[in-house]
Parts: sequence; structure tokens; C-alpha cells
Amino acid sequence: MFKYLGEISDPKDLKKLSSEELTVLAYEIRNFLIQSVSKTGGHLASNLGVVELTIALHIVFNSPKDKFIWDVGHQAYVHKLLTGRMAEFDTLRQYKGLSGFPKRHESEHDHFDTGHSSTSISGAIGMAIARDLKGEKHDVISIIGDGALTGGMAFEAINYLGHSKHNVKIILNDNEMSISQNVGGMSIALNGLRTSENYNKLKGTTKSKLMRLPSLGKPIVSLISKLKDSFKYFVVDGGVFFEEIGLTYIGPINGHDLNSLTKHMEMMKQVDGPVLLHVITQKGKGYKFAEDAPNKYHSVGKFDPFTALGSSGKLDFSKVFGDTLIEIANDNPKVVAISAAMLEGTGLSEFSKMYPNRTFDVAIAEQHAVTMAAGIALQGLKPFVALYSTFLQRAYDQVVHDVCIQKAPIVLCIDRAGMVGNDGETHHGIFDISFLSHLPNMTILSPKDSEELKFMLRYAAEYTEGPIAIRYPRGGAFKLESTLPESLLPEHLVVGEKTLLIATGKMVKTALEVAANYYQPIGVVNLRKIKPIDERELLEISASYERIITLEDHTIAGGMGECIDRMFKKNHIDKAIYHLGIRDEFVEQGDMEELLASIGLDVTGIEMFIREVENG
Amino acid sequence: MFKYLGEISDPKDLKKLSSEELTVLAYEIRNFLIQSVSKTGGHLASNLGVVELTIALHIVFNSPKDKFIWDVGHQAYVHKLLTGRMAEFDTLRQYKGLSGFPKRHESEHDHFDTGHSSTSISGAIGMAIARDLKGEKHDVISIIGDGALTGGMAFEAINYLGHSKHNVKIILNDNEMSISQNVGGMSIALNGLRTSENYNKLKGTTKSKLMRLPSLGKPIVSLISKLKDSFKYFVVDGGVFFEEIGLTYIGPINGHDLNSLTKHMEMMKQVDGPVLLHVITQKGKGYKFAEDAPNKYHSVGKFDPFTALGSSGKLDFSKVFGDTLIEIANDNPKVVAISAAMLEGTGLSEFSKMYPNRTFDVAIAEQHAVTMAAGIALQGLKPFVALYSTFLQRAYDQVVHDVCIQKAPIVLCIDRAGMVGNDGETHHGIFDISFLSHLPNMTILSPKDSEELKFMLRYAAEYTEGPIAIRYPRGGAFKLESTLPESLLPEHLVVGEKTLLIATGKMVKTALEVAANYYQPIGVVNLRKIKPIDERELLEISASYERIITLEDHTIAGGMGECIDRMFKKNHIDKAIYHLGIRDEFVEQGDMEELLASIGLDVTGIEMFIREVENG
Repeated sequence: MFKYLGEISDPKDLKKLSSEELTVLAYEIRNFLIQSVSKTGGHLASNLGVVELTIALHIVFNSPKDKFIWDVGHQAYVHKLLTGRMAEFDTLRQYKGLSGFPKRHESEHDHFDTGHSSTSISGAIGMAIARDLKGEKHDVISIIGDGALTGGMAFEAINYLGHSKHNVKIILNDNEMSISQNVGGMSIALNGLRTSENYNKLKGTTKSKLMRLPSLGKPIVSLISKLKDSFKYFVVDGGVFFEEIGLTYIGPINGHDLNSLTKHMEMMKQVDGPVLLHVITQKGKGYKFAEDAPNKYHSVGKFDPFTALGSSGKLDFSKVFGDTLIEIANDNPKVVAISAAMLEGTGLSEFSKMYPNRTFDVAIAEQHAVTMAAGIALQGLKPFVALYSTFLQRAYDQVVHDVCIQKAPIVLCIDRAGMVGNDGETHHGIFDISFLSHLPNMTILSPKDSEELKFMLRYAAEYTEGPIAIRYPRGGAFKLESTLPESLLPEHLVVGEKTLLIATGKMVKTALEVAANYYQPIGVVNLRKIKPIDERELLEISASYERIITLEDHTIAGGMGECIDRMFKKNHIDKAIYHLGIRDEFVEQGDMEELLASIGLDVTGIEMFIREVENG
Repeated sequence: MFKYLGEISDPKDLKKLSSEELTVLAYEIRNFLIQSVSKTGGHLASNLGVVELTIALHIVFNSPKDKFIWDVGHQAYVHKLLTGRMAEFDTLRQYKGLSGFPKRHESEHDHFDTGHSSTSISGAIGMAIARDLKGEKHDVISIIGDGALTGGMAFEAINYLGHSKHNVKIILNDNEMSISQNVGGMSIALNGLRTSENYNKLKGTTKSKLMRLPSLGKPIVSLISKLKDSFKYFVVDGGVFFEEIGLTYIGPINGHDLNSLTKHMEMMKQVDGPVLLHVITQKGKGYKFAEDAPNKYHSVGKFDPFTALGSSGKLDFSKVFGDTLIEIANDNPKVVAISAAMLEGTGLSEFSKMYPNRTFDVAIAEQHAVTMAAGIALQGLKPFVALYSTFLQRAYDQVVHDVCIQKAPIVLCIDRAGMVGNDGETHHGIFDISFLSHLPNMTILSPKDSEELKFMLRYAAEYTEGPIAIRYPRGGAFKLESTLPESLLPEHLVVGEKTLLIATGKMVKTALEVAANYYQPIGVVNLRKIKPIDERELLEISASYERIITLEDHTIAGGMGECIDRMFKKNHIDKAIYHLGIRDEFVEQGDMEELLASIGLDVTGIEMFIREVENG
């Protein structure tokens, strides 16, 4: 079925193929990706966009001697296909299976693990420094999207590179959008390049322009002269953004024209110093459904490749958040929403349509998002900043320095808190309680169900004393019975004997299931306010129990359980408290249920733990 | 003595002064600053550089209606002088005294607390958003140095602003250096502007250039036409960096020419949209000693204003670090050093002179510094990244995502860990154990004295299993007696009865003093490896004691003491453990001894705590 793709076990095999055969290969790769991802789920559109780009990279450069760093990394499927991992694609993103991101442990062709945005240039510079000090000769290539370029650390890296002049190649994969619509002055500048007269038109002044670029010497110009008739090349005026900062700029070129790609990459290979090749690609290329709706096909579950994705319409916590925020905003003109390139993912799409003037999507810029929110809040409005837990890590200092010290009453809406499943190590949101609970002036809430999330959002909208963080999980929303529906106090949901489970967030549901199954009556408390803990109420509830077991979808160190320890210690009460949560290790990828089971956080594991504890 | 300065209790008073009187005022301000800071210590050079700039701001804009945000904020002394705080300058940076940074609680003229770099544009955009939604009319002005502009979050903010087009004014205070020598492509670009033919030369093309700038309409051009004869103004080609990203660029202008400053600020005031005024100033201006050595006068202790600062030559922990790293590097070619604009502050000046090719100063770019280090380490070299604890907060996500997940064997040299004294809330390094100890694969060390720091650095240079963080305090180095000099195991320095003090870092010295003074024999352990704890050894030592008191110059939540709790819990050993450290609040400014006493971390406070605990 895959005549050429089936024959490629190493990138070297690519070099045996003719131009026509490579075109067929690109077609085969797209077919394979659509079929394979339709069975496993995964990132589709971004990979369909880089088929030719990845083939060209592996033709022009020599992996693994030359080193590719894939920014964000979810666009590395084609790279995986071309480096001997085709047979493993049926395990993509599954427990113990092929990762959806580059992983050093997976292949000698993966040199730097990625997952979060905007790290690749820094990583590449580091690798180039090591190469030069060791006296080695090879290339280091960062492949970065226009979205990732909006992240501050990418700028820090480019700014440094323009000065340090290390020989690092950057491929700017410009698909005119990041996950959400791309924003920012950089985007406008890039758009200027895309639509400039120079694109697709050979400029007479090219030779002289190249001559004055900092790192391009005569060899390049003569190379270019040789190539002149066979392809189009451009150094447009708009490239000054990169040129001013000290990079040699080449482009923009058509990222689906394999000839143009290989020839411009050859050109960039000759540059001795930092060089950026601006490649324009189409997300979802070659699969009509994805071309028409690249956002929808950014990250997908299983689907039928012929009829495409239906609208899921599933009520998850993100949607509960978004819908509730609209309701709150209807009555409260002070409410505004902030997103970092994740309007859709965080459930803010509808809000942004209803209140475009009160929605601020700042691109992949979590640091700016949080400090901007502080500025808004200190002037009397009420910003809700919706970020995934794992990406909020980027704004830790801003939370400390601009929010907590100033007691800025912003609301951090922490989506994807806890394990996220198939994205694995780099994406689980299992540190947020740890990195927030030691901060003075911070309040941390975690709802047991959708109704509690709604209540907390309404509560936060009226709260003016300082910041509030609300953490809620990835996945389907649900509603549980409640004993104190309009309260943040510890909720004694099940009264038991001897053993008390104190759970937070989605683990409350699990705790209720455990209690319902267990052979003896055990108590269940919903601790929805993790910081500050309502001490009197929790001590009162706990008093009649012999032991406490805490349950959280979070790392134990610094987590909710240890906040409870701290409270008991402060009150000089000695109580047997045991913690169930994530131990001191990163959690791999897999389906949520598998992962929970693997670390003992499913009903069976918790029951076993209780028995162990009860038996001393 | 201060004829005009003495009369200014409110910025409005400035507007009564003639141009000549303002010139005298500027002279008086410089005199006052030199005299006052010579008595209290503080940031001198940066404030001497912004005297005219600050006067002009207060003449052109109306504070507090118009809002200034001072990036970093240590250059706000002149602003404080002009807003009624002159009488408090003898308490500058002292306990309960005037802050060295803007503080909202201090004056209605301070709108956004700063301290860390690169936050001001985000804060200003937030305030502008609130203004516009509330339908208010006033200006929001960020004053940011060229150094701070290298921080990624400043770029995130500018990038967003170029797109969102909020009416925010940015004054780029370009003094051709940040604290350390400025680096980066941006710096080169700015240098191009400074040295361009256009600077100090009226260009005939100005009018047409202004016409095509995005936010400048006809009113400006006519304003300019009116002003044309009375002053010089420029929009140079080099400004395209900012223009491309969507800002209106004006400059560069001479930041010590009050007439030019006020007139260009008037011009910028008319722009309805984001505008950047590029002002060139001289750090230390008007005080020859500081002009000649602005770095030395960046942040000073007390000094004689007529004979100036001597070379301190004091052996502090930073110098021990720098000297030791040179020794290690002499024998180990794999060792490289990374700094984020703090070569001098972190003790790396000498290293950078001896090993320029192995020193990488990346500007104020902690995120990039850490991920670049990961890239270097994964290729087999050994990067030592020297950062102040409070600034490492900026790179939390990079430590999680690029370092810990990949087990990249970098060394984080965390200087200024613990309280730092007079810089106050924004600068204390009291969270690093909390934000590092919950991370898998991380090792955390903290030396009791200079010898132990040397040993740890040598140990880290050979360690290849993963990252190591070494935290050491601000201030003079010292040497203590040691029982296990070449080891990282818990060190039982004093054998006592019943009560055991477990201390880390500089608190070990305090613990020894307490033990020496106490009326009963108490034990002292130096816990120099905080993570992972050597369980067997610490349990063995602790076994004979009834109770443990932990001592740390760090917040209790998530700190060393709680790491010990965790270890005991893991080993199912119930022990009375009490924690002394920083409670759940930010620590204000003051001399170190005063601060330690204020939170009970001096010898007296610790003794009292022990007695309390012993008496139950």
C-alpha cells in the first residue's frame, strides 16, 4: 500500500528517491497519517503541514549527526515516520507506546525533548555552543512555528543569537496561525512578508541585498548565482525584523514545494552564523477537512477518515467555565477574559464572540497574560486568566511578583489541572498546588463537579481581597450530590468511622466510589478550598476519625495533602495522615484510566491503600 | 541648601518653574541623591541618569491621573523626590522606611509595584485596558531600560501591543547598558540607532516618514511643523524594529536635554496608540565617579561622596563561587558559565576574563539561560548557571520542562538565596526550595559555609545523573568547623539531648550559636543535601532525640523542614518536628539582622522558640 514509505527505515533511504518518487512519498505520508491518527487520535493538521518540510530537512541535512529540534514537538510525526518508527504508529500516544512528541529515549534522531512552546532556539544554541567547544562539525536546526515565536523565551533566544552569532539554523514554519488565531505585531510583520510583492517574484536586487547581509559572504552569492535560474529566492525588505536583530533572513518560500525547500535549505546550510529560513505552509495540507478547519484538526481523538470529525459538543469543564463566564459577564461589566492562544481549548470561544472587547488573547505569552491581568485588576476590573496548568508554569514569577505581592485580585482559571492523559510528561498539570500554595495572599480552589466550578467562578468574580486560583481537570463535566452547595467550606459528604478520605477536585468522585464499595463505612470530605484551609471546620470533621487519607490528582510533594499536614501541625494536633497522589516522578502518557491505575489512584488502588493503612 | 527642590511637595509645583530654574533643580536633585544615598546606600547611577527624564515626565503628564510604571523600579528615586517623599530619604531601604522601589502603599503616585525586570509594559497595557473599558481618559506610561527590554516578557508585551494598539506610551531609557554589559541583537540594533547619522542631525525626510507611521495622523504632523524650528526631532530608519512590530517610534533624543524631552513627550502624548520614545541617557550622569564606573555605582552601600567608593574586595559567597569555578575550569574543559546580565553580581567577572569563550552572558533572559544550559549539558558539557534566587523564579517552567524531565545535568548556582535585606519583598530568595523540591530528578544542596560551597561545586562538576541546585546566601563568606568536610551527608555538628536543631545553609551558623548559648545541651545537624535527603543517616542521628526543630532562611511552606516531615512520614516514623522559618507572608525590607530578628530567626528568637516547644 505504501510503496515508498514502506521502504524507508532510515533518512538515508530518502536520498535514493527521485523527485517524482518523493512527491509520491509525500502523498503516501499524508495518507498514512490520516489513517493512523484516525485510529489513535493525535495531532493531525500540523503534521500534514510539514510533510515536504520534513522530507527536505532529511534530504539536505544528515540526521542524527545534524540535530533537529522541533519546537512544541507535536509536528514531529513525519520525522518519526522517516526515522524508523512507522511500525509503532498504532501505539501513538498510548500507554507505553510511541510518544506524540520527540523523546530522546525513543530514537537517536531525537535530540531534545519538547512539548511546551518556544524552547527550541535556546536548546539549539546550547547544542551549538557544545559543538563548537568540542570542535565538532554538524548543524543544529530549530524548527519553530509562527505561533511559538510569540513566546518571550523565543525572543530571548533570537536576541542572544543575533549577538553571539552561533551557527544555528532556524526554520520558521509559518502557517499563519498557532493553535488559536495568531496575534501580535510579529504576526502582522510576518503577514507583511507573506503578502509582499516579493513573494513569488524574483527581485533584481537580490544579489546586492545578499551581499550586505552580515553572515553571507561571497561563496553564497556564487552559489546563488549558480542556482539562480533553477528556482526562486528572495530576501525581502520585510526581513529586516530578523536582520536588525542580527540574523540572516531567507524567504519566504513555499513550504510545499520540495525543490524550493531543498535548494533554500542548501543555501542556508552554507551560511556560517545564525540564519532563518521563512517557510510558508498550510496546516492540514492535503486533507480537505483539515484544510478547511485546521483548528478542529489540531488535536483530535479517533475519527472516520472519510466522513471526518463530527462536532463533539461534549460538556467538559472548559465549556462549563466558558458558559458560566458569559453568564457572569452578562451582569458584571467588570469581568474580562484573557487567554494565551487557547481561546478554544479553554472554552472561551463563545465568550470572545459575545464580548470581543472584553476578550484579550495575547498569543503564547503566559508571562505577559498574568502581569497584564494584574494591571487590569489593580484598576478595578476583574480579569479571568484561563491557562492550562502546565503552561501556567511559565508565569510562576509573574504570579509571585506582580500578582501575590500586590494582592492583585485576578482569577487564575487553571484548566487541565491534574493528569491530562496522552500528551504525557510535558503536559500533565500536576505541580500547580505545589507552586502556588507556598505563596502568600494566594487562594486555591478546586471544584468536585461542574456545579461547584460555577459557584466558585461566581464567588471569584465578587472577591476583591487578592488572587484566586481555580483548578479543574481535563475531560467531561459531571454533577454530584452536594451537602453544602453554596459554600467553600470542607464538605463532609459521607460520614464514616475510623478512616476519613479527604479528596479535592475530581478525586472527590473517586473517593465517593471507594466509600460506596468499601466493606466498612469510611468518611469522605470534599476539600474544595485548598488554601487557606478552613481550619476549624476541617478539625471538627476530622476529630472523630482515627486516620486521614488524602487523595489528589497531583504530586504529593507540596500538594493538597501536605497543606493539610501543615494545618494540623500549626494547630499542634497529632493525627495519622497518609497521602495518595503522584510520587516523586514524572508521569508518562496513556489513557487517563490506565494512568490512574498505574499509580494507584483508581478505586482498586485506593482500596488497597486503605487496607494497608488500616492493617498498620 | 536646596532652593527649588525644597519647595516641591507635589509634581504640580514643577510647572511653576522656568527653564533655567529647572536646570538648577536638576543640579540640586543630583546633589541631594549623592549625599542622601551616600548615607543610606541604594541605587545611585541609574537615578542620576534619569533626572531630566523624570522632571520632563512630571511636567508633560499629570501624575497621579496619568500613571507611570517604572520598570525594575530602582530608578524611581527622582520620582519619589518630586512626589512629596524627600523628607523620608534618610530612611531609604531601611526597616519600615522608604522603599527603594515604587510601592502602591507608599504614594498615590505609585501605581504598580516593580522590582523584577521587564514587567512594566504588560502592567501598562493592563491599566490601559481598564481605562478604556471604564471610559476614562488618562495616559499610562512605561519607563523601561534597554536592559529590561531584553527580557522575553517585555517582548511578549510589545508584540501584543503592536497588535492590540492600546494607547500606551513607552519611554525607552537607553543608557547603553543594563546592570552588566548589555548583550543581544536588540542591543546592536539600538546601537545602530545611537550611532546613526540621523542622531543629532535634522533629516529632511522627517515629515513624509511621520506621515506613513501607523498611528500618526495629520494633527501630529502639523504639531511637528510648528515645533520644527525650535528643536531637533528624528524618526530614523533603524526604528523599523519597533515600527514593524506595530509601534510608533520617535527618537532617539538626548535624555539630558530638558527642552527636547518635554517637547518630544508632548509629541508622544498626541499619538493615539502605542508609541515608543527612545531616550538616550548616561548612567551616573553628573557624578564623575559614577559616570566613570556606572556598574560600581549601580547599587552601593554607604560611601564618602567626595572620595567615592573604595574597592570592597570583601569575600562573599558570590566571590567564593566565582573563584572556585575558575579552579574547576582550569582542570575541566567541560565547564562553562552562564549569567543573565549579572556577571559581576554573581561573581563571574574574573571567570569571564579568564575564559571568555566559556562564558555566556545572555542578558536579562533567565528562561533562555536555563534552556540553553540544558542544550549544552545534553551534549556532554557542564554548564553552571548563576542566577539570583528571586530571578530564577522566571525560569521555573524551563527547570521543570527542559531540565528535570530530560535530567539535564546542569548546575543551578542560586545566589542571594534567603533574605537579601534592603531590596525587600520583590528580591528575597525565599521560595526556591519550595519551587524546586517538588520536581522529580532535582538535587538541592545548601552549604553551611564557604568551604562547603567549594566542595559542592566540585561535586556538581563531576555529577552527571541530573540537575543540581546549590543555594547560597547574600553576604560575607565564613568558614565553620566541620566533622565531615568532604561529604554531603547530614552532619551531626553538636551532639545534644532531647532537642535537635536541623538547619541548612547559613542558618547552621546560627544554630551553632544557639546551641553554644543554650542552658541545656541541644544537638545541631547541618542538612546540606535537602533533596534527596539521606534518609538512613538522618533517621539514625534523629533517633536519640525527642524532638526536632528545623531552621531555614526560607518560607516554611514547601521548605526544608517540610522535606524532613515528608521523609519521616515516608518511613512511618512519628516524630515531633517543629519548623522555624518564614511564615506565610512576604518579608519587608531592612537590614538583614533586623529582618531575622523581626521574624524570630535570630539567636534570641530561636532560643525562645525552643523553650516554648520544650515546655509544650
